Amino acid sequence: MRKFNEQKELDSMNGALKLRTQINNFIDKINDQGYSNVCWLGIGGTYASAMQAVIHMKEKSSIETFYENAAEYIVTGNKRITKETLVIISSVTGSTQEVVAAIKKIQEVGATVLAFLDNADSPLGEIVDHVISYPENEQLKFFMAADRLMYLKDEFPDYEKFYQEMDQHFAQDIVNVAKEADQFAKEFVEKHHNDAMHYFVGAGNQWGATYSYAMCYWEEQHWLRSKSIESAEFFHGTLEVIDRDTPVTVYVGEDTQRALSERVAKFLPQICGNYTIIDSKDYDLPGISEKYRGTVSPFVFHAINNRIDAHMEHINRHPMDIRRYYRQLSY
Amino acid sequence: MRKFNEQKELDSMNGALKLRTQINNFIDKINDQGYSNVCWLGIGGTYASAMQAVIHMKEKSSIETFYENAAEYIVTGNKRITKETLVIISSVTGSTQEVVAAIKKIQEVGATVLAFLDNADSPLGEIVDHVISYPENEQLKFFMAADRLMYLKDEFPDYEKFYQEMDQHFAQDIVNVAKEADQFAKEFVEKHHNDAMHYFVGAGNQWGATYSYAMCYWEEQHWLRSKSIESAEFFHGTLEVIDRDTPVTVYVGEDTQRALSERVAKFLPQICGNYTIIDSKDYDLPGISEKYRGTVSPFVFHAINNRIDAHMEHINRHPMDIRRYYRQLSY
Repeated sequence: MRKFNEQKELDSMNGALKLRTQINNFIDKINDQGYSNVCWLGIGGTYASAMQAVIHMKEKSSIETFYENAAEYIVTGNKRITKETLVIISSVTGSTQEVVAAIKKIQEVGATVLAFLDNADSPLGEIVDHVISYPENEQLKFFMAADRLMYLKDEFPDYEKFYQEMDQHFAQDIVNVAKEADQFAKEFVEKHHNDAMHYFVGAGNQWGATYSYAMCYWEEQHWLRSKSIESAEFFHGTLEVIDRDTPVTVYVGEDTQRALSERVAKFLPQICGNYTIIDSKDYDLPGISEKYRGTVSPFVFHAINNRIDAHMEHINRHPMDIRRYYRQLSY
Repeated sequence: MRKFNEQKELDSMNGALKLRTQINNFIDKINDQGYSNVCWLGIGGTYASAMQAVIHMKEKSSIETFYENAAEYIVTGNKRITKETLVIISSVTGSTQEVVAAIKKIQEVGATVLAFLDNADSPLGEIVDHVISYPENEQLKFFMAADRLMYLKDEFPDYEKFYQEMDQHFAQDIVNVAKEADQFAKEFVEKHHNDAMHYFVGAGNQWGATYSYAMCYWEEQHWLRSKSIESAEFFHGTLEVIDRDTPVTVYVGEDTQRALSERVAKFLPQICGNYTIIDSKDYDLPGISEKYRGTVSPFVFHAINNRIDAHMEHINRHPMDIRRYYRQLSY
């Protein structure tokens, strides 16, 4: 399989799951001290992950939690962020200029900042007090922090059971999804690698990832035009520009917003002959209880999207690492 | 001027401003009773207006306030919405199915609902306790409610001065913007009426309107493909698909997020030969103090967009009232 090292994938996910001890040590301490609310701050892909964390928590929690765009925070601020706030960020490079500037401003306010950094030896690593350093698996890190916060507020009573299943089965299950999806991904890319525009539709804990996949992968890394739209919003405008040949992909996950994406999936065949439905239900996740599949579905989609990326990169002969303008020009 | 009746526009805006007495009677009572937070709920265009109301409040307020998508609320709920919550909605038809269902669910929770309805004799009018009925001017209604909430929390000390200026000058100023922008709008439409894809970029209190203009006007009413992107996010993906011929329009407003849109406006000429900058600063607003222009800029853009719509409808011979699928098919 192209660009796929099973053992490396397994180690990466299992290593991320082991961060839970570090995460819990930190979150338990913050919970003991008390906090007023939780802010997930990011920009671009990390902003999208922040959206996912907030929707993940909304499923269960009455904790005040919201996401904030780093660049917007710099200019507008957010009076809900105070010294009682827990701010959680993630960064691969540790040097994204908007996030560095936002965190400096947040430190003046006195909020507590937890940073997941792939690279701790970085500008963010230098200024943040609480760093957990480990590569990739951003969404998993965010969900583990969110889940611990909810567990400590008695909003996730079966937390231990869930993570027992995750520790035992998650990595292997997701690797199996990748292998199972590879042929689909290849055919999908053969059909769509030259689309003039591709619409991606998603909801719930997959919405942030849908936004990010369209923008941070197709636009930024494949230089392919794409638009993302929330499943519920699709019916309030975007549907009118869809016709027989318009490429539309719908992610149908298993959280509470499944019905919203199912509605799009059921509607599309009436008006469109070029749609793709990616349903996490089509993938076995042995050892993961039915009731947890909604939480796990973004990881199923992530594994499938990774396969699409691997084939897209090859078929379009477009290395995903190159950028036309980002960090190439000054602006 | 095509589709423009100056007196009707003036009467419409001035009539909306006069709703302030009704709005204040209601908000003052709610403030006296106490509330925990404010939720702006909508879907499609009203969801976009909800985003604008939240960003408008963020400029000044420490009140917990957030927007919620009606369809998402139906399936996921939101534990921050309790009987102590003030929920504010707006609807033209009063019959949008997702909003009707969401409000029924919210009433079970016991939250207080204020509904701005163009048509009070409607399903929403029947189920909501507090209705203010008046056509159009949704954003103005939302801002008046938000401003009163902030005034009562001592977050808007010059509230009276602001509304004195609004009552005296707003309607005529906005009508003048429309007249001044008409020639620009005609030329813009002549150039862009057949675009395969048009990118709209906006920030701050114009972001919701940018999202709505791309989706609820170009997609839904003109059947033209478009994508909206937040100014800060533009640099984290979308920029890579912009080239010489890509049509991009940037709204540069005057609130605190002006710098984010200016950054896009300054960057674009390096990589794109088909961009348009619409800057609210280019329009005089006599009688409106400099410090209030940031609040008024979405209305400036709204007047300009209306002129674009009038010309687009004519040049494309596409009546804005027709829908291909919406409320035509069952789904």
